[in-house]
Amino acid sequence: MTDPSFPQSRRDLFKMIGAAGGGAAMYQAMTTLGHAAETQFTGPPRLSGAPKGSSVVVLGAGLAGMLAAYELMQAGYKVTVLEYQDRPGGRNYTIRGGDKIVEVGGATQTCTFAPGNYVNPGPWRIPHHHRTLLHYCKAFGVELEPFIQMNHNAFVHRSKAFGGKPQRYRDVAVDFKGHVAELMGKALNAGSLDDKLTKEDKDKLLVAMREWGVLDKNMSYTSNLAVSGQRGYDKAPGGGVGGAPTPSQVNGLSDVLSSNVWTQMGFYFNYVMQTTMFQPKGGMDMIGKAFAKRLGKMIRYNAKVTEITQNETGVTAVWEDTKTGQKASTSAAWMVNTIPLPVLNQIPMQVGPKLQAAIKAVPFNGQLKIGIEMKRRFWEDDYSIYGGHSFTDQAIGLISYPNNNMFSDGPAVLLGAFANGAGAFQLTGMTPEQRIEAALAQGSVFHPAEYRKEFISGVSLAWSRVPWIMGCTSRWTEESRAAHYQNLCAIDGRIVLAGEHATYYGGWMEGSMLSALDAVERIHKKASAA
Amino acid sequence: MTDPSFPQSRRDLFKMIGAAGGGAAMYQAMTTLGHAAETQFTGPPRLSGAPKGSSVVVLGAGLAGMLAAYELMQAGYKVTVLEYQDRPGGRNYTIRGGDKIVEVGGATQTCTFAPGNYVNPGPWRIPHHHRTLLHYCKAFGVELEPFIQMNHNAFVHRSKAFGGKPQRYRDVAVDFKGHVAELMGKALNAGSLDDKLTKEDKDKLLVAMREWGVLDKNMSYTSNLAVSGQRGYDKAPGGGVGGAPTPSQVNGLSDVLSSNVWTQMGFYFNYVMQTTMFQPKGGMDMIGKAFAKRLGKMIRYNAKVTEITQNETGVTAVWEDTKTGQKASTSAAWMVNTIPLPVLNQIPMQVGPKLQAAIKAVPFNGQLKIGIEMKRRFWEDDYSIYGGHSFTDQAIGLISYPNNNMFSDGPAVLLGAFANGAGAFQLTGMTPEQRIEAALAQGSVFHPAEYRKEFISGVSLAWSRVPWIMGCTSRWTEESRAAHYQNLCAIDGRIVLAGEHATYYGGWMEGSMLSALDAVERIHKKASAA
Repeated sequence: MTDPSFPQSRRDLFKMIGAAGGGAAMYQAMTTLGHAAETQFTGPPRLSGAPKGSSVVVLGAGLAGMLAAYELMQAGYKVTVLEYQDRPGGRNYTIRGGDKIVEVGGATQTCTFAPGNYVNPGPWRIPHHHRTLLHYCKAFGVELEPFIQMNHNAFVHRSKAFGGKPQRYRDVAVDFKGHVAELMGKALNAGSLDDKLTKEDKDKLLVAMREWGVLDKNMSYTSNLAVSGQRGYDKAPGGGVGGAPTPSQVNGLSDVLSSNVWTQMGFYFNYVMQTTMFQPKGGMDMIGKAFAKRLGKMIRYNAKVTEITQNETGVTAVWEDTKTGQKASTSAAWMVNTIPLPVLNQIPMQVGPKLQAAIKAVPFNGQLKIGIEMKRRFWEDDYSIYGGHSFTDQAIGLISYPNNNMFSDGPAVLLGAFANGAGAFQLTGMTPEQRIEAALAQGSVFHPAEYRKEFISGVSLAWSRVPWIMGCTSRWTEESRAAHYQNLCAIDGRIVLAGEHATYYGGWMEGSMLSALDAVERIHKKASAA
Repeated sequence: MTDPSFPQSRRDLFKMIGAAGGGAAMYQAMTTLGHAAETQFTGPPRLSGAPKGSSVVVLGAGLAGMLAAYELMQAGYKVTVLEYQDRPGGRNYTIRGGDKIVEVGGATQTCTFAPGNYVNPGPWRIPHHHRTLLHYCKAFGVELEPFIQMNHNAFVHRSKAFGGKPQRYRDVAVDFKGHVAELMGKALNAGSLDDKLTKEDKDKLLVAMREWGVLDKNMSYTSNLAVSGQRGYDKAPGGGVGGAPTPSQVNGLSDVLSSNVWTQMGFYFNYVMQTTMFQPKGGMDMIGKAFAKRLGKMIRYNAKVTEITQNETGVTAVWEDTKTGQKASTSAAWMVNTIPLPVLNQIPMQVGPKLQAAIKAVPFNGQLKIGIEMKRRFWEDDYSIYGGHSFTDQAIGLISYPNNNMFSDGPAVLLGAFANGAGAFQLTGMTPEQRIEAALAQGSVFHPAEYRKEFISGVSLAWSRVPWIMGCTSRWTEESRAAHYQNLCAIDGRIVLAGEHATYYGGWMEGSMLSALDAVERIHKKASAA
């Protein structure tokens, strides 16, 4: 996913986002009324008055396709959904015991997790401001539980910092702000910033530095019980005769800087990463399943689209039943096409050169995730870590602790890798067995005594080797946005594209869904006017 | 509770904590092994070989008393617990519909919350490092769920900042770090700190400031899409033709400083406030009830202790049945006394002058909480706030959003006030009706359109007016610690005190429990040697 889990991809993301204007009046009005501009969602679309007998064929039963189908159905259209796989959801996907994963190239894995255990290889967390997704979860009865994003007690690991020894986030984050506050205090007290701020603001800023940085009366950041009240103690406060605490030792500035901890501090401040976040109980695919339940037989599974044609009265998808090899075609007045671009790029489609060029212009990222089942929750029992992530600069990127069934006994599944960029390339190039070995070797830096000892099994998903998508998230640049984005979204005759690639919210289910809503509104408008 | 929800009390707390030494070897060993010094808990006590037929009377069925009773019972002692109230738990307390609250002075309230709704007027959150409490919750099957402590999307309100208009925490916190980073960058680039750090650290710190502060290429903190990626957008990114986002406007340094937002930023960094936190499903008193279930008839409720005597062979508690008025006495070889000091202070007890003086030396704080039932979860539906706190400098201190049953329909209970210090005095001095009115008036700053409109009912607990405790948390100073703490904890003949007041972890259930474990270990040692 293009979610900004890594500073480099966050910065890339922002570069990709053009400053192009255009905005919905309704939306601006909401903002003015004091409601935060949380998402472009303003409620389900009102698509009244569908032309009598009009039909739509939707390609792809991912969230974008199913949402489009659901709302068009509600509006009175006759809808057919063609889906390549034998399940709904697309990247809204959960791997459980018994599930089989076959990669391009033939490598095959069968997951052996215990009943109830799972890994979400695609999207795995839902921000509180993704109102479209939350709306449909509530409407369809998908139960959500908190996803613990920020965890002060998890680790930060940089191979070249602290001799390669992981540090608790709280230790280095508290030290970082302490040192920054101390240095700022020195600069302020030396008068170095007197021409940059008023006397009143300077005085307030000195108070702020002392309190925020937990500086002592000399404005120094030092080891004492007040600082330990944030970073933790050598001996925690207790009860009875031996109750007095002893302070922990702070790290020096150079060590703290070597940890790059500010990248994590910034990460937690990303709007899409802020509390409160959620996950569906039981696995992310509960959302896709909830949509599919409402669409029922409208979805035709195992349908591999091989050609798309259109004329002035309708559009036709030619497809093949992958189970029987039988060929068929489905025609309709209109088409919502959510096939991921790396696949769509290979399907002959009768559209104009601008849309053709746009489809070819957007490469996909190939993230990789690994789920690892452990015999017990040693991260909870032995490390007091409940949810959240331990970050590393190794290929795996992070390990993440499960948010479901905390405090329970028996096997549980860690996210053993969420690799992007070079790390994803490296791990994708390995066999599934080698990936698990790499994940165990790298993850062991955090839990050396337990990681291999408690290991049961692992499963990996390398998105660039998944046959039905060959990538995970669209990679737009400022240049490709300017040249192709509007062409990608524009209706071509009777065909409109929707999905994760047709959005400024790449890598998030919310983006796919907003794209679908925008697409059906435009198609409906055109159909109504036709 | 003396939990550091407010900067002034946090600072007070640290002042109170003496730097006195003393530490358990076991504990230090754990720390050396790389396990964090999370609590002084090292597992349940091993009290083998209780003297045959030996007995203990425990005063108070709060968590300290019940834990002491439970472990002494396990060790083979004959245990009786005398409890003043008709329920177990003490401050581990939950108010639900039908519950009656009678204050010193006679004011009476009956809670009318809907079934399933509740407010925890005492402790309400459990840090991940409170291992004693978590141990017994798991052992006794108390189900826990996440308590959302930090919420970037909740509000910060200062009467004199931003014209009294509450700000989203994320907006002002992101602005605060942006301005701090920009100023630090200026000081560094001007060479003002060149004598304070190496060239290498200076260069790294400049990178850190740019990335952590989300500064632009000129090292300025300005309104742009990258900054909006943290503080939120005017128009959020979306899908389809209108998907491009527009940035939000950052606040100036003076405005940000007027909000004192750094106090909240520091608050969330407090070790006891860090993620992950928990609450028992269904109400905090599930913990007390779980203990009481294991003690069964060992607990004598409605027993008001009126006198305590001891001699060389045993100790006697004289008590009165508050339902029947009947007088009785319970004798045992040993006593664990957990009666809160403001009450114990009034009971004649045959102990030496040092313990007497210690009991008189510790005043109690009088916090106040208000639970408010609303017709619907407007904070979720209309504000995207799920759990967490909105802070204010008004008397109520904060409002806090419920962590149970998120996304559900129907009435829900907000914490409408958690008042300390002057605010608590002010609200305690009011009638229950006046308190609710004040809470509605003050809480309306956050949710002006909904707060009164959706109000159903409210209930307040002013701890200094609660007859069985007359306060909420013990208030130690550095001086009183030095003079009295060890005397308070020392065994006096056959009597040992335990509870929240006999700890360096005041205001937390973990402290009370650690105190109880320390007390039973010492009593057992003395009993075994006797």
